[in-house]
This record gives sequence, C-alpha cells and structure tokens, in this order.
Amino acid sequence: MPQSKPVNYSEASSEVRAVFDDIMATRSINDVNNYWKHIANHPPTLKRTWEAAKEVMSTGALDSLVKEMIFVAVSASNGCEYGLRCHTDTARKQGMTEEMLGEVLAVVGVASQANILANGYQIPVDDDY
Amino acid sequence: MPQSKPVNYSEASSEVRAVFDDIMATRSINDVNNYWKHIANHPPTLKRTWEAAKEVMSTGALDSLVKEMIFVAVSASNGCEYGLRCHTDTARKQGMTEEMLGEVLAVVGVASQANILANGYQIPVDDDY
Amino acid sequence: MPQSKPVNYSEASSEVRAVFDDIMATRSINDVNNYWKHIANHPPTLKRTWEAAKEVMSTGALDSLVKEMIFVAVSASNGCEYGLRCHTDTARKQGMTEEMLGEVLAVVGVASQANILANGYQIPVDDDY
Amino acid sequence: MPQSKPVNYSEASSEVRAVFDDIMATRSINDVNNYWKHIANHPPTLKRTWEAAKEVMSTGALDSLVKEMIFVAVSASNGCEYGLRCHTDTARKQGMTEEMLGEVLAVVGVASQANILANGYQIPVDDDY
Amino acid sequence: MPQSKPVNYSEASSEVRAVFDDIMATRSINDVNNYWKHIANHPPTLKRTWEAAKEVMSTGALDSLVKEMIFVAVSASNGCEYGLRCHTDTARKQGMTEEMLGEVLAVVGVASQANILANGYQIPVDDDY
Amino acid sequence: MPQSKPVNYSEASSEVRAVFDDIMATRSINDVNNYWKHIANHPPTLKRTWEAAKEVMSTGALDSLVKEMIFVAVSASNGCEYGLRCHTDTARKQGMTEEMLGEVLAVVGVASQANILANGYQIPVDDDY
Repeated sequence: MPQSKPVNYSEASSEVRAVFDDIMATRSINDVNNYWKHIANHPPTLKRTWEAAKEVMSTGALDSLVKEMIFVAVSASNGCEYGLRCHTDTARKQGMTEEMLGEVLAVVGVASQANILANGYQIPVDDDY
Repeated sequence: MPQSKPVNYSEASSEVRAVFDDIMATRSINDVNNYWKHIANHPPTLKRTWEAAKEVMSTGALDSLVKEMIFVAVSASNGCEYGLRCHTDTARKQGMTEEMLGEVLAVVGVASQANILANGYQIPVDDDY
Repeated sequence: MPQSKPVNYSEASSEVRAVFDDIMATRSINDVNNYWKHIANHPPTLKRTWEAAKEVMSTGALDSLVKEMIFVAVSASNGCEYGLRCHTDTARKQGMTEEMLGEVLAVVGVASQANILANGYQIPVDDDY
Repeated sequence: MPQSKPVNYSEASSEVRAVFDDIMATRSINDVNNYWKHIANHPPTLKRTWEAAKEVMSTGALDSLVKEMIFVAVSASNGCEYGLRCHTDTARKQGMTEEMLGEVLAVVGVASQANILANGYQIPVDDDY
Repeated sequence: MPQSKPVNYSEASSEVRAVFDDIMATRSINDVNNYWKHIANHPPTLKRTWEAAKEVMSTGALDSLVKEMIFVAVSASNGCEYGLRCHTDTARKQGMTEEMLGEVLAVVGVASQANILANGYQIPVDDDY
Repeated sequence: MPQSKPVNYSEASSEVRAVFDDIMATRSINDVNNYWKHIANHPPTLKRTWEAAKEVMSTGALDSLVKEMIFVAVSASNGCEYGLRCHTDTARKQGMTEEMLGEVLAVVGVASQANILANGYQIPVDDDY
C-alpha cells in the first residue's frame, strides 16, 4: 500500500474541488500539481495550507521571487526534494537565473557551516545585538 | 572549562591579526564580533570561513540584503541563536524592516510545514519539473 | 559496492539468528523486514536496538498505537522514508485510519512551524511554565 | 536591540486584539502567553497560526492529549525549548503523567536512532509496505 | 514547574541506585552527572541508555577517543549544548587537543555544507559507489 | 528540466577545468565524480568548496580516515545519501572495515538519542564542564 494516493479532480469531494478550483484560478493552470492532490487526502490540511501559501508567498513587503528563493533555501537545508524541485521551478519561471540559484545555495551552505561553528564553539551573543 | 575562549587582538598571532584586520577594514568597524574571536581558536578555519563569507555574502547576482535574509531564514530553521541574532542585526542595518522580517519567518514556517507534508505523504515529483 | 547488503537467515551467525527468532516470535511473522536484515551487519547494534524497540514500543503508560504514531511523526519530521513507511504500515495494522494519519501529519507541520517562529522571534519561556 | 519585543494588549491594534480575545475566550485564560505576544509583531502570522493551531490541536479523530504529546515529541526532536516547555505544560494539565512523558521521549529517542540507522545502512523499503 | 528535576542518589529507588552505582564504578567517579540524574525520572530509559552508552562508547574496532569526537560532531550538528559540552569534556580528558577539536568542527562544517549542495543540485550517486 | 546538469570537462570553462585538473592530480584519478561536475554550475562555489575540502579533509592533527568517518557520521545524521555513499566509499578505500562502519553508525545513533533526551528533559550543563 503506498503512503498516499493522489486525489484527482474527477473523484474529489465538492470541498476539495473548491480548493482545487481556487488554486487553478489563482495560478492560471489547468490542473493542480501532485502536492495538492496528495494533501487532499486530508481536506482540512489542503484548505488550510493552500490559504496559508496563497497569503504568505505572494508579493508583500518582499517580492514573490525573493520568497520563492527563501523557500528553495529552506528545502535544500531540510533535504526535501519535492519542495526544492517545485519551488526551483516556480522561481525559474519568475526569473531566477542559474547564477542566482548558485548564490542561493552558496548562502545556505555558508550559513549552515557558520551555525555549526557557532554551536561548536558555543559563541556568546555580542552585547550590541 | 568553557567550550572556547575568545582570542582578542592583543593576544592574537600575526596570522589571526591579518584576518581581523581584513574584517575590520572590509566592514569599517573597530573590533571584530564574538564569532571571529572564537573561531580564531582554529586559525585555518578563521581564514577559510572569513574568505568564504566575504565572497558569498557580498552583492552579486543577488543583492546583499537578500542574502542576509536567506542567512536569517536558514539560522531560524536550524535554531541557531547566534547566526539569527547576528544576521538579523546586519539585515536591519541594510534596510530590513520588521514587516520584512515577519515575511521572511512566515516563509520559513510555511516551507518547513510543506516539506514535512511532502515527506509525510511521500509525494512523487511531478513529471514536468 | 552497495552501502550494505541484507543478512539473510540462512547465512546468519547463531547470534544474529537468535535475535531474528525473537523478532519473528514476538511479532508472529515468518521473516524479519529489511531493517533488521541490514542492521544485522553489526550484530551488537541488531541485538541492542531490537531489545530497545521491543521495550519502548510496547504498550505501557501509553498505548502501542500512540507510540507508533509518534514514531511516524518523528520520521516525517526527519524526512526518513524507511521509518515513515514501516511505522505507518504498523500503525495502520493497529487501527490508524487515513484521517488519523492526516491529523498526525497536520500536528507535525503546525509544531514545526511554531518551533521555527519561536526560534525566529527568540521568544522567552513564560515564567509560569 | 532584542530579536523581538512582546506586543501587550494595551498597545495592540484592534486586529491583534481580536485574535488575543479569541485565544483568551477559547482557552478561558486572562492573558495570552509570550508566544502570541511576540508573533503579534507580524499580525497576519498571528491570525493565521492561531487559527491553524485552534483547528489542528483540538480533538478530532485523535484526542487533544495525543496531539499535545506529538507536539512535545516534535519539539524535543527539533530542540526547541519554547515549544517543548509550553506543550509539556499543556499536556500535563490535560493529564500527561511523568511516566507518560518518559515514554514519549523514549519513543522519540528510539525513532531518531532508527531513522539514522536506516539512512546509514541505506535500507531499501520492503516490497509489502 | 521545571521540565524535570534531578533524581539524587539519596532519594533514588534501588533500581536507579543500581545504575548509578554501575556508572560510578565504571568511570571511577563519586557522583553521576546531571544527564543521568534527570534521565532517572524514567528508570527504564536510564537503564537502557546507560547500557547502550557503556557498550557503544568503549574502545572496540574504533578507539574510545575517536568515538567521543564523533559524539562531539553529532552534537554540534544537532545544536545540542549538553551533549557537546559533556563529550568535549570527556574527549579532552582522553587527549583531544584544541587543534583536534578545531579539526573536528571544521569537518562537520564542511560536511554539512557539502550535504546541502548535494541536496540543492540533486546530484545523482556515481555508478561506481 | 532537471535541478542541475553535470558540467563535463570537454565543455567546461578554463576556470572550471583548472579546478578539475587539481582534483584529478591531487587524488590521482582520471575523472572527477558527479559532485564536482554538478557544483561546477556555479564556478566560484566549485573553487571555494574544493579548496576547503582539500584543506580540511587531509591529515593534520587528526588522521584523514578519522575525518572521513566524521563526514560519514554527519551525512548519516543529515540523511544525505550522496555524502554518505561518497565518503563511505573513500573511508573504505582508506581502510575502514564493516565493523568500524557499524561502530560509527552506532555512535551516531546513541548520540542523537542522547541529544534528544537532553533536550526533552532540559538538562542543565554541569558546573564542572
């Protein structure tokens, strides 16, 4: 038995279809990606996380592309292939070049190394921070 | 015995002083912060990580402020207080508002939750990524 | 060369067979799963971790099913496919429905997001905890 | 400058007060804890995460106490003191004994160790999962 | 209420005292450290993890000092202050110099950075591994 | 579109070729492994991380084999298959036996479990560390 099966539009409840419709309308696409089809196994999580993503990932004080690159950074740090591939794809469509991706990953690597050294030497926070 | 003691300029070797001098000149400051004083217990790591930070964190294809915010995001994700406090301070000095910080952390939270759901439902990567 | 090869019963030492026999008897199964076959490459680890699992995962102050769901939660958080798939399977056999799995994963997602925000805002522990 | 300052009711906007009022009414308490006061620096995150917590942590297919213990498990795994202390406190108020806490943490430890061994030996998922 | 209180020898059950006695005899010390006193709140975990530590951390195919340095590496990677401080102390008593500690932490930093880049670029495993 | 494509020697820039040449000369091999070919998509990261690896992983106060085993330990802890497989291969070529690998992974498992218990019980650092 697989961990989960995708819920396709044709077999979805009206509650799930309403979310799928909103995703497709918001993003001007004809079908939702695997993420939403699988999360749809738990309709309250589908609705809640879609509404959170729509609110959080759209342009606000920060540009949408910057947010997508932060999502890529966190997914690389967490080692999550799905999140990484999906949001790298979105960021590329919004203009992220390969050089920009290279810099995102370079920062994640340098930051993780610095975090470990700060832990390893138990460095006290400076008084003026 | 503490995990590590800071190496102050007055007691530092010429090798360590050369790095401290470069940090102070590059950043126009009069003293290095605790991070570099503690990392100086292992001079090759001090030199290597300073040169990496100088190269990676400066403006390139991405703006320095975007890089600082990615550093904040990774440090929040890793739960590293030192990295978080230090780079939040730097990002604020470069213009990050509290609303921008709020959006950075909101993205990290949403991305981590999405990574966990992608793992938990074992969602296959879409063919068109 | 693969990272490790499975140790099958027919080729196992008497020390390994004794553990395999106890696993099969305890769980009323005819063969051990891949986990134990691969861990058997280091017999002391096989014996030690089997005895720990047998002690910790059986019903005590907490019901075995609750423990299996906590195991699923930790494996999703760590992004470990093997642990996730194996213990989701066990929990389903003990009565976990898809709705219960959905709630387990929803809690893990919400908790991880809350942990990151607690880190990101450096929230002090309340006096009355 | 601290990472964040708490937003107290007396100085909060009406948007923030509405969320604080709902938290206090839902939980029958006279003041919100530090978590919500600090998250209130970003009102959309306050509103979104409170509504998510209210939905996800209440009794559904799983009992509220089981959910609180999963939250404790995830926070211990992530090393987040705030989440751990806060939800241990809530779980105790809902009836978690010290023996139950001991079993929760024992499961987290055993699961993490098993996840690492599954990674370390690169154990393939069994065909019948 | 604190997360846990230490269990001191004078107030410990005979089951806990037996473990404390074995720790003190094995290590030639007059009192156990805080770790064991707090873990003693759950006696089965005390007994099980002490026996695991005694078996795993003693010299085998690998020298005890190498094992202590791996423990330091893992604790730095996990950001666990207690594990880091405790096992740095033990490793120093077994001969780890500050230069050796510097090299341990340098390897952890480089490895974590490499892990993130391997994730971030989704690098396929070479055929000849 | 894949996350990244390998950069082969025949199509590499002179900057990338210079690094590939140094890797092949240092390790007496005829081709670089997939890691370097993919990292080469961002030439500054290729150069910087190769120089870091060359400096950090060679024998110093610690033997190269000990460093390789720490790299294996960190990769198992992070769940990074590439890092794990690559450095297990290198460590085996330098003399790591299957029993030694078993002990490395056993220490990582025990350390991670101990880190979680130290977090979960919020154990204070002993005064004499």
